[in-house]
Amino acid sequence: MARRDPLTGPELHELIGDLLLLPRSLTGDGVRETLRALQDVVPLEVLEVPTGTEAHDWTVPQEWVLRSARLVGPDGGTVLDVRDHPLHVLGYSIGVDRTLSLEELQGHLHSDPAQPDTIPYRTSYYTERWGFCLPDRLRAALPEGQYHAVIDAELVDGSMSMGELVLPGDSDREVLVTSHICHPGMANDNLSGNVVAAAMARALLGRPDRRYTWRFLWMPGTIGELTWLATHQDVVPRIHGGIVLAGVGDGGPLTWKRSRQGDSEIDRAASLVLAQRDGPHDVVDFSPWGYAERQFCSPGYDLPVGRLSRTEHGTYPQYHTSDDDLSFVRADALAETVDVLLDIADAIDANDVYRNTKPFGEPRLGPRGLYPSMGGPAAEEAQLALLWVLNASDGTADLLEVARRSGIRFAALAAAAAALRQTDLLQRDDSGGDHS
Amino acid sequence: MARRDPLTGPELHELIGDLLLLPRSLTGDGVRETLRALQDVVPLEVLEVPTGTEAHDWTVPQEWVLRSARLVGPDGGTVLDVRDHPLHVLGYSIGVDRTLSLEELQGHLHSDPAQPDTIPYRTSYYTERWGFCLPDRLRAALPEGQYHAVIDAELVDGSMSMGELVLPGDSDREVLVTSHICHPGMANDNLSGNVVAAAMARALLGRPDRRYTWRFLWMPGTIGELTWLATHQDVVPRIHGGIVLAGVGDGGPLTWKRSRQGDSEIDRAASLVLAQRDGPHDVVDFSPWGYAERQFCSPGYDLPVGRLSRTEHGTYPQYHTSDDDLSFVRADALAETVDVLLDIADAIDANDVYRNTKPFGEPRLGPRGLYPSMGGPAAEEAQLALLWVLNASDGTADLLEVARRSGIRFAALAAAAAALRQTDLLQRDDSGGDHS
Amino acid sequence: MARRDPLTGPELHELIGDLLLLPRSLTGDGVRETLRALQDVVPLEVLEVPTGTEAHDWTVPQEWVLRSARLVGPDGGTVLDVRDHPLHVLGYSIGVDRTLSLEELQGHLHSDPAQPDTIPYRTSYYTERWGFCLPDRLRAALPEGQYHAVIDAELVDGSMSMGELVLPGDSDREVLVTSHICHPGMANDNLSGNVVAAAMARALLGRPDRRYTWRFLWMPGTIGELTWLATHQDVVPRIHGGIVLAGVGDGGPLTWKRSRQGDSEIDRAASLVLAQRDGPHDVVDFSPWGYAERQFCSPGYDLPVGRLSRTEHGTYPQYHTSDDDLSFVRADALAETVDVLLDIADAIDANDVYRNTKPFGEPRLGPRGLYPSMGGPAAEEAQLALLWVLNASDGTADLLEVARRSGIRFAALAAAAAALRQTDLLQRDDSGGDHS
Repeated sequence: MARRDPLTGPELHELIGDLLLLPRSLTGDGVRETLRALQDVVPLEVLEVPTGTEAHDWTVPQEWVLRSARLVGPDGGTVLDVRDHPLHVLGYSIGVDRTLSLEELQGHLHSDPAQPDTIPYRTSYYTERWGFCLPDRLRAALPEGQYHAVIDAELVDGSMSMGELVLPGDSDREVLVTSHICHPGMANDNLSGNVVAAAMARALLGRPDRRYTWRFLWMPGTIGELTWLATHQDVVPRIHGGIVLAGVGDGGPLTWKRSRQGDSEIDRAASLVLAQRDGPHDVVDFSPWGYAERQFCSPGYDLPVGRLSRTEHGTYPQYHTSDDDLSFVRADALAETVDVLLDIADAIDANDVYRNTKPFGEPRLGPRGLYPSMGGPAAEEAQLALLWVLNASDGTADLLEVARRSGIRFAALAAAAAALRQTDLLQRDDSGGDHS
Repeated sequence: MARRDPLTGPELHELIGDLLLLPRSLTGDGVRETLRALQDVVPLEVLEVPTGTEAHDWTVPQEWVLRSARLVGPDGGTVLDVRDHPLHVLGYSIGVDRTLSLEELQGHLHSDPAQPDTIPYRTSYYTERWGFCLPDRLRAALPEGQYHAVIDAELVDGSMSMGELVLPGDSDREVLVTSHICHPGMANDNLSGNVVAAAMARALLGRPDRRYTWRFLWMPGTIGELTWLATHQDVVPRIHGGIVLAGVGDGGPLTWKRSRQGDSEIDRAASLVLAQRDGPHDVVDFSPWGYAERQFCSPGYDLPVGRLSRTEHGTYPQYHTSDDDLSFVRADALAETVDVLLDIADAIDANDVYRNTKPFGEPRLGPRGLYPSMGGPAAEEAQLALLWVLNASDGTADLLEVARRSGIRFAALAAAAAALRQTDLLQRDDSGGDHS
Repeated sequence: MARRDPLTGPELHELIGDLLLLPRSLTGDGVRETLRALQDVVPLEVLEVPTGTEAHDWTVPQEWVLRSARLVGPDGGTVLDVRDHPLHVLGYSIGVDRTLSLEELQGHLHSDPAQPDTIPYRTSYYTERWGFCLPDRLRAALPEGQYHAVIDAELVDGSMSMGELVLPGDSDREVLVTSHICHPGMANDNLSGNVVAAAMARALLGRPDRRYTWRFLWMPGTIGELTWLATHQDVVPRIHGGIVLAGVGDGGPLTWKRSRQGDSEIDRAASLVLAQRDGPHDVVDFSPWGYAERQFCSPGYDLPVGRLSRTEHGTYPQYHTSDDDLSFVRADALAETVDVLLDIADAIDANDVYRNTKPFGEPRLGPRGLYPSMGGPAAEEAQLALLWVLNASDGTADLLEVARRSGIRFAALAAAAAALRQTDLLQRDDSGGDHS
């Protein structure tokens, strides 16, 4: 693909469809195939972290090699097969080849009576178990008799795969964009985050000059972030901000979950971008429940990393079931998410603290070509933006703060600041230090 | 009584009935009899402060000895007698034995035309007067003629009585619980506070280890607190918090009136306990009008002492009248008040600042027996409590603050903190110093 | 006029009528005549600032001398004449005497199709133009043919006129009251501000002792303030507060626009006075759009100068048109504005930080004659005011803050403070330093 524009919503939706049934997990070929497909969109690198790598209190687990998983009924017919849906097998299930009664089998079956037609998503990463997941209606109809459970799987010393793309900027301070890539068979959670991250990266890749370095990470949940943090201690002090992407494809309102710091630059940028768009949105406080923000915002790191999501995970019935499918994610929602992310990137890029060089009274804007010469009825946004930037620029407020106070669109303020810098009226004030 | 459980609501209501018509005042035997009755509930001590004791700008007044008070009508019949209701005599009335016309008598009668069937409560502590209080309907029906007013009372050098119970704790820092005991003939104001304080003390008495020292004080209003403060200057610096109990038996919502400090630990504990209960409640700012908090929160002391009440005094028609009787106070309201007070005590007792000993990323909870091993659909309160305590415990936020941020019940957070301390994951952080 | 009371609403309304059609502009005789008329109300001085005086980034412009302005139609009849309404000529129009076709003329005509019956207000101060303003309905009916445009005007080296009245006070710290005087032919914008300022000055003039020095300024917009600031650098450090008056005669709610500082004493005084009055009012944050506050609150000065207005300029259809006439301003609104301004002056005058000299417990008020001697049902405002002043006076809160916290009227608190100072209970605390 030659285009560097963000991918369209329908393109992103189609891409999710291509990837939906790949057997992702914490480790294994399902993740590798997903990353390989994303390489068609952006030139990400695949990192392989060996089993046993220490990651703070955790250790990279053995790699799960799943060759097949099938349950055969008393009549010899197939009850279920993981080839039909990756959720049919308990994640990280150990191997089994056993004939057993229905009663014995029940302890290895997982279903949800409250949603009898969906396959629930279940895993057992750190305790050895085997099992199948299936619709409760199917389970209830299973006849008495002997069943044959065959899972050809093993846990082997191998590696955990992660995708990484670094886009260098003028500054070595970094903005992270992460999404968890370990969930099989579900569209919103989290192929939506995976493909939106790729689309954003692709758009930024096409920009000639980037202020900050952007680092995109596609990683398995929890162990992925922990491993990345543990193995990138040199990068940690340079993290300027971060965005976790999870569940960004459904029809719910875009929601920024603040970082633990609560009011960092990326928090303010995201809140402002959402507030200045039409339509519903939400901004919520940090909590230690969710996705990668749990690790980035652990008290030892306390990094300015927030999360962009739509409907809160765990609150919609499709969550963690086979109903989180292509019909649940929407092309327009995917495209809007990319749009918002690029607005946030623009805001961070253009955010600065300025100093008005003629602060005693308003300077004359007309002779500098910045103002109409005849008094008329109404002030235009561009004029107000000039006045706001001049008035607020005393070396304390950055443009995001000016946007918050004024209600004027960030882009208009950034344009005003640029115009004022081209005259003698405005200087960047670097004494703040956080914006280098 | 052998039980150490809190008294039941009906028991408290019955106790109020026993004490209702005792002739309490700033001083005198009515107060002594009330304290003696409370000694059946808790082993309080009775302190006697001699007349003339200096208390800042004030002086302990002479003791009021009231032997009888009776008004005889023109026909020789009794118009009213203090033996029927203690409100019939003006509080601190001087003695009189005089025959006078109705017109002369009127200047010594107090009634309220707006509430013609109630006896109003009137006092004249610091100016010598005599008088009777009566329903306005009765007053309006008084025939012309000569009346005989007989009040056998005198002001003598004696003492002012106060009840005190100190329950020692691990720390010599003290939490005060006070209630004014000077009001005769009224149930909500303030026998409700008096008996609830006793019930709370009785419950705390049964606890094997108390963190703080608790001091319960039953004292006459204003002069009581001033005297106690003036004569306990050694205790003042050790006051960790305090609760004034007044009007806690009616059907209105429990209301915490903040201390003058506004955000002290006891303010936060009381606000949180009320917020986390079902049903209506209120939290209001300090004002220098009310009860003992006026003295404890005078600017020279500025102690963290707030007040728990129900309907605000002065705003209900029964206030300071004989209608504040047994029908106005409710057993369930009394029991709920005790319940809330014990929750506040629990919160203060378990409130601490902690430090996560593995703050870089989340530690593994499963291997430490703190977490289920299989990923499922929903997080339980106990799991969220663990994550919140770990995430927030950086040495700055105490558990009350974690409860406020998280919305999780304080008891669940305290249990999580206790569980985490039993592993290697959490330590108490004593650097704050206010929680010793 | 011998009265020193504030002028009545009808008197102010009549005065606006007298001044309405004077041909005011940035400079010239229209302003001089207006100031001369205001000298009948208060003894203001007229300052003349020569053309070419430097004022920061600006320069005092040449004086506009307008002798006549008339447009004659193809039939020789008068289409419009500035003698009928001063808005008919483009402000600062240069001279012209030319015959031209309707098509040529159109480029010099200004009208508003959205309000076809009003004359719009247009100016061209800093670019040389000539033009006429007229109702769009009249313009649309102009026949083809040759028109004769005659404007006898010239720009000459002269001066810019400003009115000033200084009322000395005990302190040389100054409170400014300014209103722009450059708008012709409009009642609310800003004769309302001009006459209300005069009425306020007249009332303060009659007061025997003023705490602060009050300085009233009637000045042309923007260049007036800039010039005054540039030429009064000695006064600037002594500015204690300021009020810009603009658009205070219409029927909208009184609105305080905060200074850039946001919470200065005059901001708090104005907010409190408005909050404690019946009826609607508003308090809005600073923005660099409006009137003189733009210059006083430029970041180099950042003075505590806010603005009192009614309906926000630019948001009502009469704004900057000939419909802003005598029917649009109301006598009662003018009188209420003066009333509020005098309340603000009272609040600033009586605002102090006090220290309770007996801060340990409440002092006895009865023996000092400050309190009734018999306990009754309700606390009066005067009693609560005493208690609030005593409780809050620890050397940190001024009376405005006590009023905010307590909800008690400022005047009652000021009276309480005065009474307490006459006993030994209260002292002024001058350590704050801002109230000298």
